[in-house]
Amino acid sequence: MEYQAPVEEMLFLMTRVGGLERIARLPGFGEATPDTAAAVLDEAARFANGVLAPLNTVGDRTPPVVQGDRVKVSPGFSEAFTQFSESGWQGLRHPEKFGGQGMPRVLATACLEMWNAANLSFALCPLLTDGAIEALLAAGSEDQQARYLPPLVAGTWAGTMNLTEPQAGSDLARVRTRAEPREDGSYRLFGTKIFITYGDHDMAENIVHLVLARLPDAPPGVKGLSLFLVPKFLLTADEAVINAEPASAMALGDGVRNDVRCVSIEHKLGIHGSPTAVLQFGDHGGAWGEMLGKPNHGLQTMFIMMNAARFGVGVQGIGLADRATQAARAYAMQRVQGQPVETPADDASKAAAPDSRAAATDTRHAAATQRTIIAHPDVRRSVATMRAMTEAARALAVFAASRGDHAEHNPDAGVRQAAQVQYDYLVPIIKGWSTEMAVEVANIGIQVHGGMGFIEETGAAQYLRDARILPIYEGTTAIQANDLVGRKTVRDEGAAAGHWLSCIDACITALHAAGGRDAGAAAAAWSSIAAQLSQARDAYAAVVEFIVNAAQTDPAAAYAGSVAYLQLAGVTLSGWQLARAALLAAGLDDGFMDGAEKSDTGRDAPLAFDVGPAFAETKRALARCFAEQVMPRTSAWRIAIVSTRGDQGIYALPDDWL
Amino acid sequence: MEYQAPVEEMLFLMTRVGGLERIARLPGFGEATPDTAAAVLDEAARFANGVLAPLNTVGDRTPPVVQGDRVKVSPGFSEAFTQFSESGWQGLRHPEKFGGQGMPRVLATACLEMWNAANLSFALCPLLTDGAIEALLAAGSEDQQARYLPPLVAGTWAGTMNLTEPQAGSDLARVRTRAEPREDGSYRLFGTKIFITYGDHDMAENIVHLVLARLPDAPPGVKGLSLFLVPKFLLTADEAVINAEPASAMALGDGVRNDVRCVSIEHKLGIHGSPTAVLQFGDHGGAWGEMLGKPNHGLQTMFIMMNAARFGVGVQGIGLADRATQAARAYAMQRVQGQPVETPADDASKAAAPDSRAAATDTRHAAATQRTIIAHPDVRRSVATMRAMTEAARALAVFAASRGDHAEHNPDAGVRQAAQVQYDYLVPIIKGWSTEMAVEVANIGIQVHGGMGFIEETGAAQYLRDARILPIYEGTTAIQANDLVGRKTVRDEGAAAGHWLSCIDACITALHAAGGRDAGAAAAAWSSIAAQLSQARDAYAAVVEFIVNAAQTDPAAAYAGSVAYLQLAGVTLSGWQLARAALLAAGLDDGFMDGAEKSDTGRDAPLAFDVGPAFAETKRALARCFAEQVMPRTSAWRIAIVSTRGDQGIYALPDDWL
Repeated sequence: MEYQAPVEEMLFLMTRVGGLERIARLPGFGEATPDTAAAVLDEAARFANGVLAPLNTVGDRTPPVVQGDRVKVSPGFSEAFTQFSESGWQGLRHPEKFGGQGMPRVLATACLEMWNAANLSFALCPLLTDGAIEALLAAGSEDQQARYLPPLVAGTWAGTMNLTEPQAGSDLARVRTRAEPREDGSYRLFGTKIFITYGDHDMAENIVHLVLARLPDAPPGVKGLSLFLVPKFLLTADEAVINAEPASAMALGDGVRNDVRCVSIEHKLGIHGSPTAVLQFGDHGGAWGEMLGKPNHGLQTMFIMMNAARFGVGVQGIGLADRATQAARAYAMQRVQGQPVETPADDASKAAAPDSRAAATDTRHAAATQRTIIAHPDVRRSVATMRAMTEAARALAVFAASRGDHAEHNPDAGVRQAAQVQYDYLVPIIKGWSTEMAVEVANIGIQVHGGMGFIEETGAAQYLRDARILPIYEGTTAIQANDLVGRKTVRDEGAAAGHWLSCIDACITALHAAGGRDAGAAAAAWSSIAAQLSQARDAYAAVVEFIVNAAQTDPAAAYAGSVAYLQLAGVTLSGWQLARAALLAAGLDDGFMDGAEKSDTGRDAPLAFDVGPAFAETKRALARCFAEQVMPRTSAWRIAIVSTRGDQGIYALPDDWL
Repeated sequence: MEYQAPVEEMLFLMTRVGGLERIARLPGFGEATPDTAAAVLDEAARFANGVLAPLNTVGDRTPPVVQGDRVKVSPGFSEAFTQFSESGWQGLRHPEKFGGQGMPRVLATACLEMWNAANLSFALCPLLTDGAIEALLAAGSEDQQARYLPPLVAGTWAGTMNLTEPQAGSDLARVRTRAEPREDGSYRLFGTKIFITYGDHDMAENIVHLVLARLPDAPPGVKGLSLFLVPKFLLTADEAVINAEPASAMALGDGVRNDVRCVSIEHKLGIHGSPTAVLQFGDHGGAWGEMLGKPNHGLQTMFIMMNAARFGVGVQGIGLADRATQAARAYAMQRVQGQPVETPADDASKAAAPDSRAAATDTRHAAATQRTIIAHPDVRRSVATMRAMTEAARALAVFAASRGDHAEHNPDAGVRQAAQVQYDYLVPIIKGWSTEMAVEVANIGIQVHGGMGFIEETGAAQYLRDARILPIYEGTTAIQANDLVGRKTVRDEGAAAGHWLSCIDACITALHAAGGRDAGAAAAAWSSIAAQLSQARDAYAAVVEFIVNAAQTDPAAAYAGSVAYLQLAGVTLSGWQLARAALLAAGLDDGFMDGAEKSDTGRDAPLAFDVGPAFAETKRALARCFAEQVMPRTSAWRIAIVSTRGDQGIYALPDDWL
C-alpha cells in the first residue's frame, strides 16, 4: 500500500467541522452537496492512490534533468499531468466562467491534501498554477483573463512565482530584475531569478511566469516592485493576438520561445521530483512581458498569490504528515521485534482495575501477544502522536477553508468581513505550524522504522527530506510569525485572537458537559482534554497580551518570541478543532457559535458514510493524545516568552560570542 | 572556514567542570597535566580542522563503492586514516601496555568530539575500533590481547560490531548466526549480518569483526549468544601462529582472506562517507573465528563495547551540533537580508532603560546597523539556542567522562563504585538526549540558512542527514530510555537520580548567592537560571517518583513516558552542568560536592588559557538562554507523564484505529 487517502475522515471534517451543507447553500456553490463531495473525493482518492502515489519514489530517484534547452521531468510525470488536467482537477475551485467547477475551498482542500500526500513533488506544479490563477483573477485585465485563464484553469498551462534573487530572499526590497517599457505597451525583462519551482519543464503546453521586477523610474524598496506576466512560449495567433513582435523571440519546438531560460536546476535535500530552476531573463535582448495590475503595486498582487500558496503549503505539510504516519503505522503493525513490557503485574492490575480501565488493559494485552512493535509503549506513543498531530492540523485547515469560503461567498457583508479576518489570522499559522509539524512527524516516522528508517529504499527518509522545504518556502516560519505578530495580532490589538479565546471557552464548556454525561474512560478523556485545552488557552491569552503590550515599547521583545507564539497558537487552535471533531463525532454539542447564528457547522448534517462508534472513539482518543502529549508544550512556550522575558536573555549575548 | 575545534571551551570544561587536575593525580594518569592536555588538543584541532573537515563533503558526495571483492572508500579517507594512526590518535585513552597513551576520558572525549565534528563518517571507524579494544581488554585472554590489541591500539587495524540481522535489530534474542566448534578450539561461523558500519573497507591492514552468534547447543534468547573474533585476514605467521589451517581460507591480496565478505553496502540518508555493509559469513565453508569471553556470555561483553560506543555516539551528536552551529552562525553573521525590527521605539526604551539593560540595548542597536540576519530576533534566538544546547550537552558529557575516569582509576573503592553508578546512569542520557539534540540543532541550522539550507551544496542539509542516524544506531532513543527506566532508575528506586537532585539543589543555592552578589543584568541572569533550574529539578523529581512507583503496578505506564523522562533528565542535567560552567567561568562557587570531598572539580586549577570577561559573560548568557528557551520543556514533559497520565490516553486508542 503506497498511500490511502483518508476519504471518510475528510468527508466527516468538511461536513461537521467545516459546515459543508451551509457552504453549499451560499451563492455560487450550488453543486457542492454532500453527495457530490463524496463522489469528488472518491474520484480524487482513486487518482491520488493509483496514479500519483506510485510516482513519488520515481521522482525522488530519477529527478528532472536539463537537456539542452529543456527540462525533462521524471518518468511518468508528464502522463500524470495530462491525466490531472483531463480530469479537470486544476479547475476544481476556480470559476466556472473560465472553465472551472467553482467548488468550495473546504472540498478543494481535501483534494489538495491528497495530491500532496501522494506526491509532493508533482503536486507543487498545480499548486503554483493555482497561485497564478488567483493573481490573474484579482488583478488581471479582462483581456488578460481571457487569454491566460482558460488554459491555466484547464491545467494545460502551468504557472510559476518568480520572486527570489540571489540577494533577495525573504527581503524582496532587494529585488533587482528590471522591466523596460516598450512603445507597444509591453515590457522587456532582464535579470536572474533563483529557486523557481517548476521554473521549466516539459509537462505543460506553456508556462506563465509571474515575475517581480522594477520599472526604470521605480522607487527603491518594496514599493517599487511591479508584477509581470512572462510566458515561456509567446502567445501566438492561435491563442490571442499580441500587437508587436517580441525583440528576441526564438523559434523552438511547437511555440515561439520567449527570452527566458533555465540555466540550471538545483541539487536539493528533497522534493527531487520537482525541478527548482535558476531562470535567466533577457540574455538575448529581453524577455517579453506584460504588466499584471498597477505599476509599483506588484507586491500586493504577489501577496494574493502568496496567501493562497501559504495555505496550500500548510496543506502540503498535512498531506506529507499523513503519508509518513500511514507508513510508520503500517511498519509498526507488521514488524515483529522485542518483548513488550507487559508483565504478570499487568494481569494483576487488570484484575484490580475498575471497569473504566478494563478496555484499555485488554488492548494492552492483545497487543502483547501479537508482539509487533506497536505493542511497545514508546512506539505506540510515537505513532499515536504522529496521527494526532496530523489530524489536529487537518481539522484546523478544513475549518480555515470554511472561513475562506464564507469570506468569498457569504451574501452578508459583515459575515464576509469577519470570516476574512479569521481566515487571514489562520493562514500564517496553517503555513507555519502545519509545516513544522510535518517535519516533526516525518522525523518521528523515521524513528519508528529504526535502522530501516535510515535506509533510503524504505521510503521514510524521503518524507523527512521532502518535508524539510515546507517551513522554508513561501516564507519561512519566522516570516509567518512576523506576519502573525505584526499584521494579525498587534494591528488589531489582539481582537482576532480574542475571538478564538471565546470560541475555545465555549468548547471547554461543551467538553465538561460531555464529561458529565459520559462515564468511565470516556468521561476521563473528555475532562483531560478540557483541562489541557483550558491550560493552553490561558497560555495563548497570556502570550497575546504580552505581545500586544510589548509591541508598543519594545518590538524586539515581541518578535523574539514570535515563532514560539505561532507554534503555541497552532497547537492551541488545532487542538481545539480536534476537540470539536471528537465532540461532533460522538454526536455531542461542540459549543461552536459564530456571530448571530447558533452555529454554522453541520452538527446535524447527514454524512455520506456511517460514523460508527469506533470512529468516534478513535477521534476522542486522538484528541486526548494530542491534549496530553502535545498541548503541554504551550506551558513551555508561555514560560519562554512571558515568564522569563526570554528576549532579554537572547540579547544579553555579547555580539562576538567569543 | 570548514570547522574550528573549540579548544579553549574544551580546556575550560575539562579543567573546571571535569576536574582534570584531580584526575591527573589518579594512579596511571601521570601524563595528563593541563599543559599536556592543551598541547594534545592543539594538535588534535590541527588534524581535525585541517585534514578531516575538508573530507566531510567529499565523503558525502563520493561514497564508498563495492569493487569486486573490496570496498573502496571515499577519496582521501585512506590517507587520513594512515595519518590518524601514525599520529597515535587511536591509542589516546588505551593502556600504555598495548602501545596506547593512557590518557583520561575527559581528554579523549574532547578529541572524539573533534573527529566527529570534522567528519562523522570518517570518525565512525576509530569509534568502532575503540569498542573492539574495550571488549578485548575486558574479556580477551592474554594470548588474544597480545595478538589483537597492539595493531588495534596502533590504529593500523580496525574493529566492527556485528549484532544486527534482518530479523534481529533491537531484539538480539532473535540472532540466528551460528558458530560450529572445531576440534582445534576454533569455530566456523555461518550467517548474515546487516547494518555493519565499516563492515569492509580498504583503509586498515586488517578488520577484526566482533560477531554475536549461537553455539549449536545454546539456549534460546539472549542467554544463548556468544561473542567471536572473526578477522577479515587470517592472522598469519607474521602476526601470530594459529594452530590450525582454516577450512576455507582464500588467498587474496597481501593476506589470507577469511570466509566473510561484504555482499552490498546500503544507500543511506546520511553518513554517506561510511560504508554500511551486509556481511555474509560462511558461504564458502565457514568463517574462521575464535571465542571472546565465555560461551553464552556474549551479550555481557557486547554490552561493554556498546556502553563505550553509546557514550561515543552521544559525543558524535555534540560534535555534529557544534559544526552545524558554527555553520549557521557564520551564515547568519554574513548574510545581509531584511530590515531588523528595531525602531525608534528602541531608542526611546534605551534612553529610559536602567543601566542594567543598557548593554543589551546597545547590542541590539549595533546589530541593527550591520543588518546581517543575526540582527533579526528569531535568527538570534535560533543560533543562540543551537549553541546553548550544544554547550549544555558538551558540559554534561565532559562531566560524565570525569565520572568514568574516577570509576576506573580512583584508588578508593567506594569512590570508584559511586562514580561507576553515576557514569552508568548518565550513559543512556548522553546517548539519547545529545543525539536527539543534534537532530534538532541541525534542523534549526537549515532553517537559519533559509532556502539555501535546502540546497545540498550549502552543506547545512548534510548535517541533518548525518545527524539522523545518531538517535537510531547503538540502540534507539527508546532503547536508551528503557535502560534508563529499568536498570538505572527503577532497580535502585531512584537513588542515582536522587543524588543528582541534591547536587542540583546545591547549584541552585550557588546561583542565588551569585545573584545576590552581582547587580543589574548579571543578577537577573543568575536568578532566571536559578528559577528555571529549580522548576526543572522539581519536574525531574516528580517524574522519577512517578516512574519508580508505576514500575511496581503498571510497567506500561512507566515505559510509555520513558522517552520523555530521558529528555527531561537530559535537559535538566545538562542545564545544571551549563549553570555550573557559567558559575565557574565567573570565578564563583558552583556548589558542587561529591561525597566526602568539598568538591572534586578544578575550581581553582590554573587554566592553560586566559578566561576573559567576555568568556564568562558568554557562558552566563548561554546558560540563561538554555534555561529560558529549553528548560521550560520540562514542565511539558512532567504534565505529559505525571499530571495527565498520558499513558492511559495512548492505550485508549482502539487497536484497529479505524
